[in-house]
Amino acid sequence: MEHHTDTSHLDRAIRQQRTTTATVTVRHNGSPFAGQEIIVAQRRHQFLFGSNWGESTIALANGELIGYEKELAERRNANFLQLFNQATLPFYWGRFEPQRGKPDTRRILNAARWYQAQGCVTKGHPLCWHTLTVDWLLSLTNREILQAQIERIQREVSDFAGVIEMWDVVNEAVIMPIFDRYDNGLTRICQELGRIELIRTMFETARAVNPKATLLLNDFDVSPAYDILVEGCLEAGIPIDVIGIQSHMHQGYWGVEKTQYVLEQFTRFNKPIHFTENTIVSGHLMPPEIVDLNDYQVSGWPSTLEGEERQAREVVLHFKTLMAHPLVEAITWWDLSDGGWLNAPAGLLRKDHTPKPAYEELLKLIKGEWWLAPTKLTTDANGRFSFTGFLGEYELSTGDQHVTFSVTEKGESLVSVSL
Amino acid sequence: MEHHTDTSHLDRAIRQQRTTTATVTVRHNGSPFAGQEIIVAQRRHQFLFGSNWGESTIALANGELIGYEKELAERRNANFLQLFNQATLPFYWGRFEPQRGKPDTRRILNAARWYQAQGCVTKGHPLCWHTLTVDWLLSLTNREILQAQIERIQREVSDFAGVIEMWDVVNEAVIMPIFDRYDNGLTRICQELGRIELIRTMFETARAVNPKATLLLNDFDVSPAYDILVEGCLEAGIPIDVIGIQSHMHQGYWGVEKTQYVLEQFTRFNKPIHFTENTIVSGHLMPPEIVDLNDYQVSGWPSTLEGEERQAREVVLHFKTLMAHPLVEAITWWDLSDGGWLNAPAGLLRKDHTPKPAYEELLKLIKGEWWLAPTKLTTDANGRFSFTGFLGEYELSTGDQHVTFSVTEKGESLVSVSL
Repeated sequence: MEHHTDTSHLDRAIRQQRTTTATVTVRHNGSPFAGQEIIVAQRRHQFLFGSNWGESTIALANGELIGYEKELAERRNANFLQLFNQATLPFYWGRFEPQRGKPDTRRILNAARWYQAQGCVTKGHPLCWHTLTVDWLLSLTNREILQAQIERIQREVSDFAGVIEMWDVVNEAVIMPIFDRYDNGLTRICQELGRIELIRTMFETARAVNPKATLLLNDFDVSPAYDILVEGCLEAGIPIDVIGIQSHMHQGYWGVEKTQYVLEQFTRFNKPIHFTENTIVSGHLMPPEIVDLNDYQVSGWPSTLEGEERQAREVVLHFKTLMAHPLVEAITWWDLSDGGWLNAPAGLLRKDHTPKPAYEELLKLIKGEWWLAPTKLTTDANGRFSFTGFLGEYELSTGDQHVTFSVTEKGESLVSVSL
Repeated sequence: MEHHTDTSHLDRAIRQQRTTTATVTVRHNGSPFAGQEIIVAQRRHQFLFGSNWGESTIALANGELIGYEKELAERRNANFLQLFNQATLPFYWGRFEPQRGKPDTRRILNAARWYQAQGCVTKGHPLCWHTLTVDWLLSLTNREILQAQIERIQREVSDFAGVIEMWDVVNEAVIMPIFDRYDNGLTRICQELGRIELIRTMFETARAVNPKATLLLNDFDVSPAYDILVEGCLEAGIPIDVIGIQSHMHQGYWGVEKTQYVLEQFTRFNKPIHFTENTIVSGHLMPPEIVDLNDYQVSGWPSTLEGEERQAREVVLHFKTLMAHPLVEAITWWDLSDGGWLNAPAGLLRKDHTPKPAYEELLKLIKGEWWLAPTKLTTDANGRFSFTGFLGEYELSTGDQHVTFSVTEKGESLVSVSL
């Protein structure tokens, strides 16, 4: 990794794929609002920049924290909201419903509503996965397991409708039927049904309950197995809205070339792509011989000064590489703060939720280089003004009047607003 | 590898999957042929034991050899026919039709007819592959390449109908669209169509020309990518008759466990499985770091005494492992004699076509332990006799009368024959 990688080709592609030159016609009481000074400012990105939930945020949203714990959680939230507009919320079945019939709906719903109230897009993760599933499936027949899984999807998609409208429906289907670390109900039914039939059943179940939900297939496998599986599912008519790709890079940043190669394998489907679980550590790398990342159990995994600088460079490259690809619509960081999954120094924030260089660099991009700060302009004789900005939501202000509008198509946009 | 591996569990499975106890009722002029001495002898196996063509056999079948070359070819053929009942014939497009419109139909047809006349099942390999394809595709548009590929399938399947009724229709589709060693027409159209749509087109084309042909998908990839591709194709309704699995073990014998694991991944489709290209060398192993076997270019790769003994043990284990699985219906060795592909000592015969221990051991199985030599029996008062044998074709003789019959169902069979 070069310290100063030339990203000008990525920067150009990002502007081409993500920005629009908007011509806005402003009217006031039916007439052109001509020759007036206005202020235009970006309010949100159309692109989803996000992270997974914090346990502390869930606790805070449920009024469970006080004192220093509460302050810490609020610091995390402030940093989250400064940078992000998307949150992935936990639906691991084994934690969500350890006792059959007693799902943890209320707590997660409170957290999801909090994120929604802050203007974030929320996603539930996952509805169907062989890992962290419920033990009580093991005493059921395959037919009963399938029925329980279907009903679990129906319940969650229904209970959270209007708050969570985006779901990782099936997680890690490539390995699901050959997962051999321990017996579990999902591997059993995936072996019996096959991957495609299992995926079809879960997607059709979710779709039937919430026809307008955005439904993802999600996997960490980026070998041909995954794009062949996606192809098989799409050929079979399964209503997959978004291809989800994990990139837990605990063993080292992929680099631009590999990332672009992975993207290339999914480009032919012409479907939106979400990079759903992105990890780059700011400490030592996990040894390359580890196959299942969960096998790497360490008591301490410190973030280092040198590691934080490397992480910052790599995070910038990673985000730019993804933003430059026209089909990518979301990047979700995993985890926002150190000490989450695998106790890895994977955060953009440290354990005390103070920003690392990677956070600062991302902020410079997401709310700096890729953002329109409040800008004074004057409308022309026809009440028009123009600006170039990233797709998303903008606010136009003049005096004490405010109006918001969105630009959603790259290239050129025509917008009309009335004050 | 233990020298004396206990194969009794495999041997039991083979008898269970491959043999039948046949009760044969013999009639003569409409009456039971009672209390008579008869001889029953196996004539062929239902299971396909085969090898790929020999260049010398093709030359011999076309009258191109004389002298020592001819004697050598005849020795190879004698050894081939003593052991095998299936031959795979070469249809590499780049060699078959290097000049557009001038296919090598006659020579291959003569060779196929020769194998057919010797009682062998013939298979054409392959109809669609990115390697060894024709260079003249490179100057065509993708649409023209696709049309040329379709017409090539229509021509071959039609020209060889009645002689070749079994085809490797698409070869190595997992890697086809991402093959990056050199530009070629098939990678181009596979990238555009996707794997499943390409496979569908080729299978439907072959099926339309010869509705009763046996059509294989064939691959060396035994990662989940391949079984997921098969699943996608079957879900998409593509008429695949047989799943073809290559096992070029130049880098070492897989062993029983891996072979059974690979088989297990394809068992759920309940389709016949052919092990289409089997290689175990009797010399040093190719280094493990070689990814594309074609990269291993050596001038000499000798067969050794020690290697031949190891090969013999491994070949026996390999054949027994495959014969023990109920869905496997064919095993094709690659190549029969040393000095073929990659100049590897992969033969069951040496370069001069003399048998190695592996050949002798296979002969003991295929025409010994798994074979019914001529056996004297006496019919009972109802003209009946019983025997247990491997599925296949048998001849009943008495005096100068001969009649053949087949047993095709494992377990128990009832057969009636009339003298």
